Amino acid sequence: MKKVYLDTNATTKPYPEVVEEMLPFFKEAYGNASSIYGFGRTAKKGLETARERVRKLIGAEFADEIVFTSGGTESDNCAIKQILRTSTNKGKHIITTCVEHKAVLNTCRYLEESGVRVTYLNVDEYGRINLEELEKSIAADTVLISVMSANNETGTLMPIEEVGIIAKKNNILFHTDAVQLIGKMPFDVKKSGADLVSISAHKINGPKGVGALFVKRGTPLTPYFHGGYQERGLRAGTENVPGIVGFGKACEMTASRLDENREKIGALKKLLYEGIKRSIKDIKLNGDPEKCLPNTLNVSFAYIEGEAIVLNLDAEGIAVSTGSACTSGSSDPSYVLKNMKVGPLFIQGAIRFSLGVFTSREDIDCVIEKLPRIIEKLRNISPVN
Amino acid sequence: MKKVYLDTNATTKPYPEVVEEMLPFFKEAYGNASSIYGFGRTAKKGLETARERVRKLIGAEFADEIVFTSGGTESDNCAIKQILRTSTNKGKHIITTCVEHKAVLNTCRYLEESGVRVTYLNVDEYGRINLEELEKSIAADTVLISVMSANNETGTLMPIEEVGIIAKKNNILFHTDAVQLIGKMPFDVKKSGADLVSISAHKINGPKGVGALFVKRGTPLTPYFHGGYQERGLRAGTENVPGIVGFGKACEMTASRLDENREKIGALKKLLYEGIKRSIKDIKLNGDPEKCLPNTLNVSFAYIEGEAIVLNLDAEGIAVSTGSACTSGSSDPSYVLKNMKVGPLFIQGAIRFSLGVFTSREDIDCVIEKLPRIIEKLRNISPVN
Repeated sequence: MKKVYLDTNATTKPYPEVVEEMLPFFKEAYGNASSIYGFGRTAKKGLETARERVRKLIGAEFADEIVFTSGGTESDNCAIKQILRTSTNKGKHIITTCVEHKAVLNTCRYLEESGVRVTYLNVDEYGRINLEELEKSIAADTVLISVMSANNETGTLMPIEEVGIIAKKNNILFHTDAVQLIGKMPFDVKKSGADLVSISAHKINGPKGVGALFVKRGTPLTPYFHGGYQERGLRAGTENVPGIVGFGKACEMTASRLDENREKIGALKKLLYEGIKRSIKDIKLNGDPEKCLPNTLNVSFAYIEGEAIVLNLDAEGIAVSTGSACTSGSSDPSYVLKNMKVGPLFIQGAIRFSLGVFTSREDIDCVIEKLPRIIEKLRNISPVN
Repeated sequence: MKKVYLDTNATTKPYPEVVEEMLPFFKEAYGNASSIYGFGRTAKKGLETARERVRKLIGAEFADEIVFTSGGTESDNCAIKQILRTSTNKGKHIITTCVEHKAVLNTCRYLEESGVRVTYLNVDEYGRINLEELEKSIAADTVLISVMSANNETGTLMPIEEVGIIAKKNNILFHTDAVQLIGKMPFDVKKSGADLVSISAHKINGPKGVGALFVKRGTPLTPYFHGGYQERGLRAGTENVPGIVGFGKACEMTASRLDENREKIGALKKLLYEGIKRSIKDIKLNGDPEKCLPNTLNVSFAYIEGEAIVLNLDAEGIAVSTGSACTSGSSDPSYVLKNMKVGPLFIQGAIRFSLGVFTSREDIDCVIEKLPRIIEKLRNISPVN
């Protein structure tokens, strides 16, 4: 059976070149990057090449602003918790949004237990924050603003450059979880105005278990992992050299094909949406139709459950999701859509199609061919139809 | 030039079978383990096979007592910080040792800044703690004892079963950093009496960037990473499926060859030590000559600097270290040896030879052949000789 993978916002298939680049670091260059002898120096060189490639992808000024982590969740935890810890004299207030990834939201909830105040900004029907509400939320003790670059469920872009300007004007540090935007659209860390940026390798056709935190020079970040002096003391633990090398290669390849892939993927998404609209009635597009990631299409199908659609598509070899993989297992409707005030008719039947660099025209045709019959079948047996 | 790698306590070469087992999870089974469709279920199955293999290696009763992490440092940070956080009502006192790995020591130092009291147990000339001192250190508010299973620099074994008994008797949780012992000697988590055990994959011929924390059922551990519901809510973040799969394979292979490798490696270490003793005078064995890891030989060479020996051996293709890779970059003498009261004649010239499953008789012969001339050369130019 033909396999169609349309869940790249959950994870992506590594580029074959990424795997190739990693292999020597498993097989021969297996040294500890902190060791001073030859094996160690080769590993260290691999790390620094990767660091430079990450730097280039996000337009950072200095390679030492890139700290390697085990992924986006660690980067988010580190940025938010450590800034709050170092800022105890200055204040204990964070501003974030109600549609952040769980790695940000649950970190904030955890901090609330220890007395940190958190403002969760509302979003409009497209899932975007209001900048006036942001400005009004700023208090004397606000130490951090954390706003995602693009939403993982809907693809809606947040106005992060404007957030960066507001943060700077008010002398507040700005963190953005850019895990979903980086690699899909141009991202310039300098333009973003962010002091801290979370990045993940496995969302850009790199390996799982690796990520980075951009830390602008001068940002008062303390280590989240204590131990050895790796990453200039900012992140202890033997470096995951093969993973980091693969991450670097993924960054390099992503950067070199960004415009081309963006255009190709955007056209396929348009095709998919038009195909769905043409053949299925009572649907709703979730997220901003314009200011949106080029690869993400979130559509609700009235009267039915998203999970049933996912399982039926899976039986046809097509992988999509109802929302974030990090919230699967829960049968609650998406908090992102809830906060966008998606009504009862549509909130249960949301499907996120997320396309990637390996998505083909045939993949889209396959979905357009099979989806209408599945929706029809499910609607026929639905008690609410 | 022949390459001789005798620094397996820093990191190891992955078994070729480990890399083979990982590859399909990079190439085809790249799904997110939290996803409910086919790609996700295959990944999830890989995770659970690995979890079962880790469980078996350490003799844990339940697979759900294994929580995957990014490595030993994360496991140590998680165990110590989270137990102290959940125990705030009960107390704020930790007992550990002065020769722990930096991942434990620096975590404890960090906690001291926020009011936690830490007792650092002394060690004897072999680097072993005194159990009476441990018992005397216990206070009404002691919530955690953290004692490593074996020292990474000297290989000295700690009396962890006795520590476990004392901890249990006093109703105190017991954590052991077993990163260096597991895979080199039999380790039975039930016999150890430990509630929390840190494990690393890359020390047992698995990949870097992966590890585990054994968490005995009923241990009140809270998550260190907040976010998605991975690892039953104990460790958020998309699972590093290929890494975890490789870790599992390494555990399986390690378990099946443990006795054989232990014997072989122990014999090679004996050969190495005898060769050194025979041809080089003014040396000192650091660590316990008997109760020691079978693979670790720490020897001091009087009158010279360890780092000079490392670099001269490196020029001959031989990789060894002066101590922990996690403390390299610092020119201070080893705090482990300092705490063992190794005197000024010997403390600067310590070399750790750590053998592994790929170490051959030829490797040892090569060191025995080349080392004496290097030591002689360095001693001839030494200002303190």
